[in-house]
Amino acid sequence: MASRPREHQLPTTGGEAGVAPTAPPAREPSHAERCRTLVHGERRGALSTVAADPAGYPFGSVVSFGLADDGDPLFFVSLMAEHTQNALRDPRASLLVAEPVPEGADPLASGRVTLLGLLAPVDDDGRAVARERYLAANPAASYYIEFGDFTFLRLAVDHVRYVGGYGRMSWVDAAAYAVAEPDPLVDAAAGIIQHMNDDHADAQVLFCRHFAQLPDTVSASMSAVDRYGFDLVAVSPDHRTPVRLAFPTECTTGHEVRTAMVAMVAEARAAG
Amino acid sequence: MASRPREHQLPTTGGEAGVAPTAPPAREPSHAERCRTLVHGERRGALSTVAADPAGYPFGSVVSFGLADDGDPLFFVSLMAEHTQNALRDPRASLLVAEPVPEGADPLASGRVTLLGLLAPVDDDGRAVARERYLAANPAASYYIEFGDFTFLRLAVDHVRYVGGYGRMSWVDAAAYAVAEPDPLVDAAAGIIQHMNDDHADAQVLFCRHFAQLPDTVSASMSAVDRYGFDLVAVSPDHRTPVRLAFPTECTTGHEVRTAMVAMVAEARAAG
Repeated sequence: MASRPREHQLPTTGGEAGVAPTAPPAREPSHAERCRTLVHGERRGALSTVAADPAGYPFGSVVSFGLADDGDPLFFVSLMAEHTQNALRDPRASLLVAEPVPEGADPLASGRVTLLGLLAPVDDDGRAVARERYLAANPAASYYIEFGDFTFLRLAVDHVRYVGGYGRMSWVDAAAYAVAEPDPLVDAAAGIIQHMNDDHADAQVLFCRHFAQLPDTVSASMSAVDRYGFDLVAVSPDHRTPVRLAFPTECTTGHEVRTAMVAMVAEARAAG
Repeated sequence: MASRPREHQLPTTGGEAGVAPTAPPAREPSHAERCRTLVHGERRGALSTVAADPAGYPFGSVVSFGLADDGDPLFFVSLMAEHTQNALRDPRASLLVAEPVPEGADPLASGRVTLLGLLAPVDDDGRAVARERYLAANPAASYYIEFGDFTFLRLAVDHVRYVGGYGRMSWVDAAAYAVAEPDPLVDAAAGIIQHMNDDHADAQVLFCRHFAQLPDTVSASMSAVDRYGFDLVAVSPDHRTPVRLAFPTECTTGHEVRTAMVAMVAEARAAG
């Protein structure tokens, strides 16, 4: 991205829409990374288990969860709860985790992940870690973490389904999910987006005009940011264009994002 | 409730905690009514279907829904979607619907309903109603409601599981769910609660002191309201007490709630 002289930035058949055509395609998180990031950012999901009565019906319930190092969800559940009884009889299960839906937005346009696997009690060796991870994600559970009729369960993920919105979905390799890292900007992203949209609208227009070859851009807003780059919507008098731009180098902190943005503004201004 | 002279309001073994003991117990919505109200108030849930691959795994996905007159959920789904393909092979399914969780609150203390049943395409006779109900709940779907590769599905509910929070749960008779009415105050409740807590804290203290025989109440806040009455938390120097009070007569509008509250204040003041 963005390091090539301006005369190279003409459309070619090899280019992707909205990306400087002679630059390498702007890197995006893989679906495995998107899944790890999404799951990492939430603490509550819908667990599906297999009911005994009515027999074989898939049964949905609300659960809180923590995460093991490999992204397996960890639960702390009452032994009397339906989902626990179901899992002890038939371990096949899935956990659905969905991004929060912005007020007024279409819920089916937001991201969600279904982690499928076998749900079973955590053995003695794993109990300390399960407890630590569950409590880290759900501090309120400290009030009943010693209850004798509760137990830790782990969903050993063997299949992963990702839906990023309309028409953006895939089955993700479970091994790739297990080793993928949550995006280091996950907690900072909302603040970065708000800051850029509130205070740096001009810079975003400049980015779209220069780096995405959309010279008729009149306004632009950021919709997502991750370690590799960010997504914008460029608005011209005629149309709205989704734009993906890469950072010059990966950014793992808000400070690094700021430094990258400043460098990109300088480059775009120098070229303009 | 509340129409008996003060000398009758002494504790007896027949009384419920926090309710005038010689008055009839303050009527509450049945679990069937609570389920209908909860489902009526939401438009999005987690659908569980039976996967073909991995075989027999319960598969959770995000869905928007509308409601038939008998409370059966109606869906408008892509024929290519996993849940649609699953349902066409095996109709056993459930829909989990959860109340919104207030910021900072424990998600496991909120209400949720699991509707279990058989999920199948809506026949030609039912299509117009399904379309109307789905669009009423999901206006954004009007952009793709004519797409040929989408179809309407109906979950014919045959089992209902209700969880109102910790330790407050039951299997609800599906026939009772089908005929129960959503609470007429469902849309007004949040505004009533906020208004009472913001502007009528004194009245609520008076209610707890007089109607609930908690004379040491120093503050009180409303947590829920429905056609039959309302829930308060009474705070004294020593403890917090949940209180349920019934309206003198059922209230189906915010205006009727206001009239009832004014009458209850007058009665409590006259007795005090």
